[in-house]
Amino acid sequence: MVKIAVDTAGGDHGAGTTVYGTCLAMREDPELECLLFGEPKQIEDALPDFADTERIEIIAADEVITDDDDPLRAVRRKKDSTIVKGLKAVAEGEADAFVSAGSSGAIYAGGLFLIGKKPEITRPAAVSILPTVSENSPYYMLIDSGANITAKPEHLVEYARLGSRMAEQFLNNRNPRVGLLNIGSEPSKGNAFSKEVFQMLAAEDDLNFTGNVEPSVLLNSTHDIVLADGFTGNIMLKSVEGTAEILLNDLLNNVKKDEQLDEDAVQVIEKAVDARIKRYTNVDIGGGFILGINAPVVITHGAADEVMFKHSVEMAARLTNNSIFNDQQ
Amino acid sequence: MVKIAVDTAGGDHGAGTTVYGTCLAMREDPELECLLFGEPKQIEDALPDFADTERIEIIAADEVITDDDDPLRAVRRKKDSTIVKGLKAVAEGEADAFVSAGSSGAIYAGGLFLIGKKPEITRPAAVSILPTVSENSPYYMLIDSGANITAKPEHLVEYARLGSRMAEQFLNNRNPRVGLLNIGSEPSKGNAFSKEVFQMLAAEDDLNFTGNVEPSVLLNSTHDIVLADGFTGNIMLKSVEGTAEILLNDLLNNVKKDEQLDEDAVQVIEKAVDARIKRYTNVDIGGGFILGINAPVVITHGAADEVMFKHSVEMAARLTNNSIFNDQQ
Repeated sequence: MVKIAVDTAGGDHGAGTTVYGTCLAMREDPELECLLFGEPKQIEDALPDFADTERIEIIAADEVITDDDDPLRAVRRKKDSTIVKGLKAVAEGEADAFVSAGSSGAIYAGGLFLIGKKPEITRPAAVSILPTVSENSPYYMLIDSGANITAKPEHLVEYARLGSRMAEQFLNNRNPRVGLLNIGSEPSKGNAFSKEVFQMLAAEDDLNFTGNVEPSVLLNSTHDIVLADGFTGNIMLKSVEGTAEILLNDLLNNVKKDEQLDEDAVQVIEKAVDARIKRYTNVDIGGGFILGINAPVVITHGAADEVMFKHSVEMAARLTNNSIFNDQQ
Repeated sequence: MVKIAVDTAGGDHGAGTTVYGTCLAMREDPELECLLFGEPKQIEDALPDFADTERIEIIAADEVITDDDDPLRAVRRKKDSTIVKGLKAVAEGEADAFVSAGSSGAIYAGGLFLIGKKPEITRPAAVSILPTVSENSPYYMLIDSGANITAKPEHLVEYARLGSRMAEQFLNNRNPRVGLLNIGSEPSKGNAFSKEVFQMLAAEDDLNFTGNVEPSVLLNSTHDIVLADGFTGNIMLKSVEGTAEILLNDLLNNVKKDEQLDEDAVQVIEKAVDARIKRYTNVDIGGGFILGINAPVVITHGAADEVMFKHSVEMAARLTNNSIFNDQQ
């Protein structure tokens, strides 16, 4: 059995979406048990008919941490919040992983503060799973996609080491290709930070470091792990997601207007475009997680719908099997 | 008459492409004269039948600066190169603007060294013109897209001032919305650099500074000018271009395979996708230019085809009318 602590209050859509999404994941995986944190009445109302209530425990949590709260302060003060109670359940061994669509700053601070970090990571990173157009290796890991904004060069080396171990199970890849996000492929390219990280990574014997990588080629599946400081990684993440979503919707709207196309043709295109929007806005994969704390903590978009939330619960369950969490316990 | 100095040797495809592209631009604009720098025999062979040779002067330049050359050193030593001779023609008043698909580092160094910079700009920036999905304001200017990698906060304020003046004619916008590229919209977001730039921009009375902007929304035409240090700007540029190109090609390939679609439907989609690939890879606009030197210098992709090169010549011609070049002469 795997037990997931779920924050039902986080996100834009509330318990209706998070509870339903959780139950979708449980329906497909009979090994899954869930602790649902939030307002009990709302949670009960949101349970669908097919919910297996034997595997669900509802735990009252009255407070909600919002994006307006100062993350660290909120984690310290709002002891009755879904985030604090859910993370505590993991810290105390009552659950194996935590999932939330709430304030990523608070989840990050809370994970660090309540669950604790791995000794080999100085400052935890956010990992985003980004899509490629390759069928053989459809995803890569971007580390850090936005947590450690003022990273030091050695932090990225730590991410490379732990990320490589993680990729073995997570991407099913024993020798993941590690690249450094940069504005050119030559070692001399970039700013002082990237040059220093390059030298440090090149000196690591146990890494499959393949050098600098420009963001223009990543969709072609050139790498399994791409390293960046949290600022640069977040700029890349939002550039890729935003471009894909806006561009594809614009394309679809324009194609639909074309009078030469019959209904069937429009549907074919709509299906192809929709599939890609879901892929490139992370709906298919469910969200990202924190690298460097002692248990799996998955953070999904505030705007996540039922399907995306379902995938985030599945991601959490999958992460509980990862060797980076099991070796240390 | 407007006179453009053209580097025919730069780029991946050589004189066949650059000369043909230049002649395409000249055919549409009878006011255009061009100085073609390169190997005379190759240039003559590449001239199409419709070329108006009355408005063309061929100037021998035997050397080529490649991406392997150290930019500043190459500019100092390769005095007979197309880049040095072309830029010198502009510096000496024989031409009004310069266009090249060659080494951007050498063009930047050469522009600074041979033409000289404007007093109000400490370190020139690269400007890329990026597309939006809006019909009313189809482009925005990204400053800096990759020249000044180790920018200081005050450099971005200088870019905002000169860029705003430039946008009046270039984007036909008297009060351009200036945004700072960042990972969140609140003033407190980002790294130390972005916070400092935010404060400096907010203190400028003559700018229409609208705050931070995340790269996820720019395609919706939220801004006319987006400011970044050269490293961050280049990461964003390559993320947008790479995502658009790879994603759209992948979509097209998959839709084509669908047997439900007839030939006509495939053509409609192919046309819509091709148009967007051209837009998002800058083919339609022609390239970028350097902000902060005393004459228009346009840099286009090494991989530019005839049509993209044509647009880069047109961009150079258009820039010669910009008040930021005319007020000072």
